[in-house]
Amino acid sequence: MRVLGVDPGLQATGYGSVEQAQGRLQVLSWGTLRPRGEQLADRLLALAALFAPLLAELHPDLVALEELYSNYQHPRTAILMGHARGVICAEAARAGVPVTSYPASEVKRAVAGHGRATKEQVGQMVRARLGPLAPFPDEHGCDALALAVCHLSRNGCPRGRP
Amino acid sequence: MRVLGVDPGLQATGYGSVEQAQGRLQVLSWGTLRPRGEQLADRLLALAALFAPLLAELHPDLVALEELYSNYQHPRTAILMGHARGVICAEAARAGVPVTSYPASEVKRAVAGHGRATKEQVGQMVRARLGPLAPFPDEHGCDALALAVCHLSRNGCPRGRP
Repeated sequence: MRVLGVDPGLQATGYGSVEQAQGRLQVLSWGTLRPRGEQLADRLLALAALFAPLLAELHPDLVALEELYSNYQHPRTAILMGHARGVICAEAARAGVPVTSYPASEVKRAVAGHGRATKEQVGQMVRARLGPLAPFPDEHGCDALALAVCHLSRNGCPRGRP
Repeated sequence: MRVLGVDPGLQATGYGSVEQAQGRLQVLSWGTLRPRGEQLADRLLALAALFAPLLAELHPDLVALEELYSNYQHPRTAILMGHARGVICAEAARAGVPVTSYPASEVKRAVAGHGRATKEQVGQMVRARLGPLAPFPDEHGCDALALAVCHLSRNGCPRGRP
């Protein structure tokens, strides 16, 4: 099974593709999409234009996102993130790839062992679980890989370093 | 000039197309898109699939949306609206149609004369300004028509019934 974790954003959308085969997790690819465009609409179209070929190239079985929650400190920023998340969802559906989502606390628990882990702890555990990655992905790619690891952990992959 | 007002939503996306020619406003079309789909991603793709042919059919010079604001009573609902708004923006950009947005208070002021007009007052004024429409559009179509009227009022169309 191959999962593409995605951390959507208008400035930067992280992605991380992880494959599980014979009980082992293997990172296939990760990175950050940086759509350009002065206007919001142009940037969203650019995001779709970057994401669609990524889906075609990586052909995941599933896209994993972070679940929406109800309390946001900056609702306006969260709504703009929603624009990017909407485009990612629509492009996944266009490619016939199902989308699922996990609460942030569940991602932390699956990757770092407890639901209040810091970003740094999650990053360390992603690295530990996936083996030495050079160069280590930036924050966005790391968050995306954590989502992919979370899905695979929740669906049959044993805990700990595979 | 032909403006397509759009009031994006996951359940219902209102649209209203208004043309200004020789100082007169004319309603070309209005309606409500109701994308189907059990999953969020499927519904967003369905919205894109309904909106793209509408753009091709109505070929507006501009799409007018309501501007985002910073205080939302229900942030989660607002973020989901953001998903739909993102898809609308991306499809407009794909069709080469520019997108602009107006604060709700400016729409009310342009259509009903003051920024705190009720939905009913805005609806009455849309009807009065655009002439008898039968059947009168639902709430979503009406909000969308108000956005189109707002843009045209702000860009050279005289106030009052043209």
